[in-house]
Amino acid sequence: MTKYVYDFVEGDKNQKDLLGGKGANLAEMTNLGIPVPAGFTITTEACKEYLNSGSEPAELRSQVVAGLAKIEKTMGKKLGDQDDPLLISVRSGAKFSMPGMMETVLNIGLNDRSVEGIARQSGSERFAWDSYRRLLQMFGRTVLSIEGKLFDEALEKVKSERGTTADLDLTADDFKDLIGRYKLIIREQTGADFPQDPREQLNKAIHAVFDSWNTERAVLYRRQERIPADLGTAVNVMAMVFGNVGMDSGTGVAFTRDPGSGDTGEYGDYLQNAQGEDVVAGIRNTLPLHDLERLDKKSYEDLTGIMQRLEQHYRDLCDIEFTIERGKLWMLQTRVGKRTAGAAFRIATQLVDEGLIDMDEALQRVTGAQLMMLMFPQFDAAATDTTLIARGMNASPGAAVGKAVFDSHRAVDWAARGEKVILVRKETNPDDLNGMIAAEGILTSRGGKTSHAAVVARGMGKTCISGADELDVDVTAGQFTAPGGLVVREGDVISIDGTSGAVFLGEVPVVPSPVVQYFEGTIDPDTSDDPLVKSVHRLMVHADEARRLGVEANADTPEDAARARRFGAGGIGLCRTEHMFLGDRRKLVERLILADTDDEKDSALQALLPMQRQDFIEILEAMDGLTVTIRLLDPPLHEFLPSLESLSVERAVAQATGKPPASGRSTEELDKLYDAVVRLHEQNPMLGMRGVRLGLVVEGLFPLQVRAISEAAIARKKAGGDPRPQIMIPLIGAVQELEITREEAEQVLGQVRSENGGIHVETPIGTMIELPRAALTAGQIAQVAEFFSFGTNDLTQTTWGFSRDDVEAAFFTRYLDLGIFGVSPFETVDRDGVGALVKMATETGRAANPKLEIGVCGEHGGDPESVHFFNAVGVDYVSCSPFRVPVARLEAGRASSGVVGSDTR
Amino acid sequence: MTKYVYDFVEGDKNQKDLLGGKGANLAEMTNLGIPVPAGFTITTEACKEYLNSGSEPAELRSQVVAGLAKIEKTMGKKLGDQDDPLLISVRSGAKFSMPGMMETVLNIGLNDRSVEGIARQSGSERFAWDSYRRLLQMFGRTVLSIEGKLFDEALEKVKSERGTTADLDLTADDFKDLIGRYKLIIREQTGADFPQDPREQLNKAIHAVFDSWNTERAVLYRRQERIPADLGTAVNVMAMVFGNVGMDSGTGVAFTRDPGSGDTGEYGDYLQNAQGEDVVAGIRNTLPLHDLERLDKKSYEDLTGIMQRLEQHYRDLCDIEFTIERGKLWMLQTRVGKRTAGAAFRIATQLVDEGLIDMDEALQRVTGAQLMMLMFPQFDAAATDTTLIARGMNASPGAAVGKAVFDSHRAVDWAARGEKVILVRKETNPDDLNGMIAAEGILTSRGGKTSHAAVVARGMGKTCISGADELDVDVTAGQFTAPGGLVVREGDVISIDGTSGAVFLGEVPVVPSPVVQYFEGTIDPDTSDDPLVKSVHRLMVHADEARRLGVEANADTPEDAARARRFGAGGIGLCRTEHMFLGDRRKLVERLILADTDDEKDSALQALLPMQRQDFIEILEAMDGLTVTIRLLDPPLHEFLPSLESLSVERAVAQATGKPPASGRSTEELDKLYDAVVRLHEQNPMLGMRGVRLGLVVEGLFPLQVRAISEAAIARKKAGGDPRPQIMIPLIGAVQELEITREEAEQVLGQVRSENGGIHVETPIGTMIELPRAALTAGQIAQVAEFFSFGTNDLTQTTWGFSRDDVEAAFFTRYLDLGIFGVSPFETVDRDGVGALVKMATETGRAANPKLEIGVCGEHGGDPESVHFFNAVGVDYVSCSPFRVPVARLEAGRASSGVVGSDTR
Repeated sequence: MTKYVYDFVEGDKNQKDLLGGKGANLAEMTNLGIPVPAGFTITTEACKEYLNSGSEPAELRSQVVAGLAKIEKTMGKKLGDQDDPLLISVRSGAKFSMPGMMETVLNIGLNDRSVEGIARQSGSERFAWDSYRRLLQMFGRTVLSIEGKLFDEALEKVKSERGTTADLDLTADDFKDLIGRYKLIIREQTGADFPQDPREQLNKAIHAVFDSWNTERAVLYRRQERIPADLGTAVNVMAMVFGNVGMDSGTGVAFTRDPGSGDTGEYGDYLQNAQGEDVVAGIRNTLPLHDLERLDKKSYEDLTGIMQRLEQHYRDLCDIEFTIERGKLWMLQTRVGKRTAGAAFRIATQLVDEGLIDMDEALQRVTGAQLMMLMFPQFDAAATDTTLIARGMNASPGAAVGKAVFDSHRAVDWAARGEKVILVRKETNPDDLNGMIAAEGILTSRGGKTSHAAVVARGMGKTCISGADELDVDVTAGQFTAPGGLVVREGDVISIDGTSGAVFLGEVPVVPSPVVQYFEGTIDPDTSDDPLVKSVHRLMVHADEARRLGVEANADTPEDAARARRFGAGGIGLCRTEHMFLGDRRKLVERLILADTDDEKDSALQALLPMQRQDFIEILEAMDGLTVTIRLLDPPLHEFLPSLESLSVERAVAQATGKPPASGRSTEELDKLYDAVVRLHEQNPMLGMRGVRLGLVVEGLFPLQVRAISEAAIARKKAGGDPRPQIMIPLIGAVQELEITREEAEQVLGQVRSENGGIHVETPIGTMIELPRAALTAGQIAQVAEFFSFGTNDLTQTTWGFSRDDVEAAFFTRYLDLGIFGVSPFETVDRDGVGALVKMATETGRAANPKLEIGVCGEHGGDPESVHFFNAVGVDYVSCSPFRVPVARLEAGRASSGVVGSDTR
Repeated sequence: MTKYVYDFVEGDKNQKDLLGGKGANLAEMTNLGIPVPAGFTITTEACKEYLNSGSEPAELRSQVVAGLAKIEKTMGKKLGDQDDPLLISVRSGAKFSMPGMMETVLNIGLNDRSVEGIARQSGSERFAWDSYRRLLQMFGRTVLSIEGKLFDEALEKVKSERGTTADLDLTADDFKDLIGRYKLIIREQTGADFPQDPREQLNKAIHAVFDSWNTERAVLYRRQERIPADLGTAVNVMAMVFGNVGMDSGTGVAFTRDPGSGDTGEYGDYLQNAQGEDVVAGIRNTLPLHDLERLDKKSYEDLTGIMQRLEQHYRDLCDIEFTIERGKLWMLQTRVGKRTAGAAFRIATQLVDEGLIDMDEALQRVTGAQLMMLMFPQFDAAATDTTLIARGMNASPGAAVGKAVFDSHRAVDWAARGEKVILVRKETNPDDLNGMIAAEGILTSRGGKTSHAAVVARGMGKTCISGADELDVDVTAGQFTAPGGLVVREGDVISIDGTSGAVFLGEVPVVPSPVVQYFEGTIDPDTSDDPLVKSVHRLMVHADEARRLGVEANADTPEDAARARRFGAGGIGLCRTEHMFLGDRRKLVERLILADTDDEKDSALQALLPMQRQDFIEILEAMDGLTVTIRLLDPPLHEFLPSLESLSVERAVAQATGKPPASGRSTEELDKLYDAVVRLHEQNPMLGMRGVRLGLVVEGLFPLQVRAISEAAIARKKAGGDPRPQIMIPLIGAVQELEITREEAEQVLGQVRSENGGIHVETPIGTMIELPRAALTAGQIAQVAEFFSFGTNDLTQTTWGFSRDDVEAAFFTRYLDLGIFGVSPFETVDRDGVGALVKMATETGRAANPKLEIGVCGEHGGDPESVHFFNAVGVDYVSCSPFRVPVARLEAGRASSGVVGSDTR
């Protein structure tokens, strides 16, 4: 016979799969000798069988009856008794807490007769009839699926007939009247009377909990959170105790430490003569938990004693719900409590100091996501005088204040003269990079969380709100219009909260992040008196000791490189070179593209050479002694030219009006440029002439870059440095591409070496793995590569067949809503698809070339869950934006020291 | 000791790996007792060791000496002898014939002394000194790598000094003079004298052959043909015989049957008193082989006897080279001979009738590529009065004649009134589909072999030249200008040859394809007196009996469906629905997109329903009793709207000039349309909102299509038909997408069924596998799919990360040149990348769902080499354009009946 019913004395906290979280913890407390009302849990197995077969398992009914008999015996009361009836509650309780499922039916056991017994026992007619009407209402809504507003309307009607608006003014007789109306509603809506038999009430409630596993909201929630659909829920049946039977009764919620700050000591609220739902309803103000000491010293001491025991037992912060019935304390729930990011770090090291856990376990108690929260500046929560003018997407967290500026050049100029600016654009593109660097934050009216603005800002750790489409941004006029017609002009101060997506007019005070100051080296953890900084420091040190995975940074300026180094990066895993072709150099790229002869082309390349060389000298200097992996030019050439649309418009308007072109170019220049753009135009640039394809078609381009790298390295070596460049070829799909490109690069390296008297700087050559075909043929490619670096952004685009540029606009949000992804695959690596390719390529690559160094340089390199995955499949290092380096270090430490995979629920 | 040298008596025809093709066949003939000059072959192993280590294997020299001694013994002459010297030839001979490698050095053994012996022996001073200067020239060029033009210039100089322009006028003394000059060139260019030692000549020639394996051209050729780089070449050393020592000598080439027509009987050319190179040089006209009977009956009879033996022995058409030296016949080479497509089919069945091979083997003797050649109409090769005006890419073969028309609507109109038209466009897009259907052929000035025009035309089996960029096409003026200023106006007749890419002015006569007439059923193979039709028929019947693989067709009109059925398709594997939203219905799609309310949207959908239903009724009727796999709408919605560029220009011009919009739309309509296009605009539409994404975002769209399919099927069933629709969901990347879409589709199927009194038409639901992620998670997807259909075009795009639309423009041609692909991966499936995904998904899909039906519906379904691959990995059927159905049937038969993989070399 399968055991479907576990009395609370039979289970323990490790049986969450079978008993759900709530049931397992109730059992644990019961067995610790902590006062819990008698009860039992019906297992998730029973639920699963019910859902699969459509009816409850044959043995369940008799086991419930037996369980109930135990409760009756323990409590000395009988369900449905007309003198002193037992009342019970029925609650759902799955392995993971799940909004959308039926929560609770209280007061089961009340009927037309037992209500009288309760009235006598409690000495309160009003209490008894109020309890009964609550049962009818709750049962009607959740078990019988009757629309809640029918009950609400009936209640309102009674109140208005009594000439009042407050429930508290209603009498026992009023509730009796209301009960009549409720019964009528139930009969009308279901064609049957409210069941007077308490056993029938109980069984129906149990089935309702089972059924609630499959409500639409619950299904959606599971899809989004990637909770398996076949877990099922447990059902907890427990004797009712009442906090609302006098001033010696009451109810409360509490934490064993302050979940906000992490400060030690109990923390909670208490409400006299009340039930849990009254606390939630907020009818009266609650008292601080410490006041209970004054009101009921015995219960207070019992409670704090229990809380201390629970914390020792669970070795963590716990939260609890309790009720005092006529001076007797009952615990109704406990679990490991939620806490803020700062509290998590502080509590973790406190528990180490208290000897409850070791540092490895402390590392498991904090997450990279929490660390990230601690790194962003935030608006002062105490600020009150704020004017919210719009909301957009919380694209990159943090708080930024500055003057609105609508042009990237002006943003740079204003910042140079010491102004703080917020760059406001419809959307950004690579030309805005300097403006974005100069700005405190970025605000766009178009694009979502994966738009250019959002992705680049997150990479910089810079506050960004994207897609604030309520704002009508007019870049030409230098202003935007907010809902209601408020106009913000260039130079007006605004504040943007990248954590919430809120845009404020004027300056909202900002609180700086001490954790970032610690990473920057401006706060010394040994001398600081900030306990949070000390906790973070201790945990970071331990993470670095524990981790196997290297952490490098994506950086392409000397400033970013230096910051990455301060933040603990062990090298640069991705130094992009495209920004080195922007700004003033764009003209040279234009010359290169428009060149009619080889001489013109060579002269453009030659002009670029010293600039490129200087770029690399500075970066190699900043990272002296550490590897710098430089990716040769990746984006399609037309990104360096104006758009086809704008040129078409300019030409058509010039022709139609007979006026000269608007840009000031001559008609011939415009035509030539237009022809080039048409020639280079691609339907799908992401799938076009990029990366190595560019290198193989535009002769001289990659050799120029290789020469610049090699000359820079030799210059550094001559200056006494320790340069460690690596050359990375992008967008390889076939080993032949790498063979040809590598051969060419090695020729250039050899030339530069002999031009410099044989000075040798070891310069490994490797490749991005960012196309499915590269991953599928990794065994071939590994034979001619010294390293692999997975470009998981691009790999995600091609594996899924969608583009990072376009997705937000259309179906992406809908996919998140539908739960097709729980989280964007651009944020956390998709294990089944992209992850399978990473795993496969790591294995076959390493088998073909055991010396192969393998890294990851996509955005995922700084994503906590992804870091665990990469650690598990055996890559050597991850590379991420400098700001994410500490996060990756922490998660890499967690991955090595503890569980496989982070606990994301 | 490794054996590196095989005397001709030691090898046989199956040792091509070791002895190369030429050497293996020489050995075979020797062992058949056929007169072959004595000789030996140095193995490919020797070459490989030489290339790997940089010097020849230690044992090689002595083995060559021993081999030479055998030749000397057999021929009764000695190398370098001053009285009667042996001369030898050295030739390369790899496993696969490879242009770019050194071919031959003749006359080795001649030096300042032995030349006198040859003069005496041959009785011709001139012959001797001419032979010697030829050796110097060949040796200098190929062995010593001296520029050939130095020798040519010296020869010209001598001729001009003698006052002649013909070699034949030169005397022995002239050649002696020339030899002096040649020696000087050799000394000047190499710093050393021409080696007088015949052994040194031989060794140097052998090394030169080894080295020629790695010439640039040879490397490139191997890359393109995907011949492994490490095979190496063999070297054949053979005693020289001379056909140019009198009128009783001569040389010839011959085939055992006519390689052009396939007619039986020997066929070849003979030239008296000549050597092979004279035949090639075309100095004198050759005689038909049969004339040899008159000139030298004995040799003729020997020769025809040998040819018959070779054919019996090789059981195939052979070609041969032979020389008669003073009445003695010598065979210098044989191999299985190349032949035209028609000859291949005829000879295959002839050999069956002659009892040499069985039908299975006959099937291996023909290819789908040959069948394809037989299916295209061709210009009459006899036509002389043609005016070539331009060349483009031979995008889709065949011959087409018609009036140039520059607009698809007019093409349809003109065709409707019985005119034959050639559609001429800069490039085509889906709107041109009807025009393309109406036209005899398509000519574009832009786009390559994978442009829209090319791909669609190939799909239709319609002649197409794309990218004829010499032509300046002016669609608005209705004319194009050819090089030289020739203007062709709408209505002028042109002829286009899709097989060669040639564009002619005026009408060139076309020969129809009897093979297509046979497939169409208008020629009955039993009564026809065309032997080619009979052969094709016999082989097709056998292929159908032999094949495991099903062959279906891609078709989306009733006409195409009917044709596919006539061509032997077992169903429709891909019925696209996008054309059903074009033409007049485009307005409804525009209404659907621009709808402000649900009502407007519904009304647009409702208007589409009866049209869609009628589409499906007609197709199901044409394919009654066979499956029709209908793909729900796939392309992004903006494809149904005007381009962003054109709308931007129209608006900007209207604003700048103050005139109304050029299209005749009101300003408001234009603005609304513009806004919608901006909203739907995607940077990378190929990676955008297509396929199932569209279905999940545009509510009601897929249900409309499912309803139309279901109602059409029921209508057909009511009419007594046997409809077999299948519903295919495109662009699935995650199983959740399919779950949601399938559930919705099944609801609609259920509704339509109950609206129709429960009439049930089995309608399996499956999915395209066209994204890497779908292939990687095929095990999950197979659990909710009844069939898979690999969309290998799209899978190629995302696996490689390039787009079919853009590739021709930029790097694709360069990649083919560089040999990064031997053939476009859009033409033949890329086994290592895309193929690996197909294999993986087939295996995991079938493991998860053993009933899963698996097909391929990309272009590759009709590509011969790809068909073999799909057969090998175990898919159930391929689906291709109707025109390719016979090709796929033939190749599927070949794949089942014989070798694994087609022989492509």
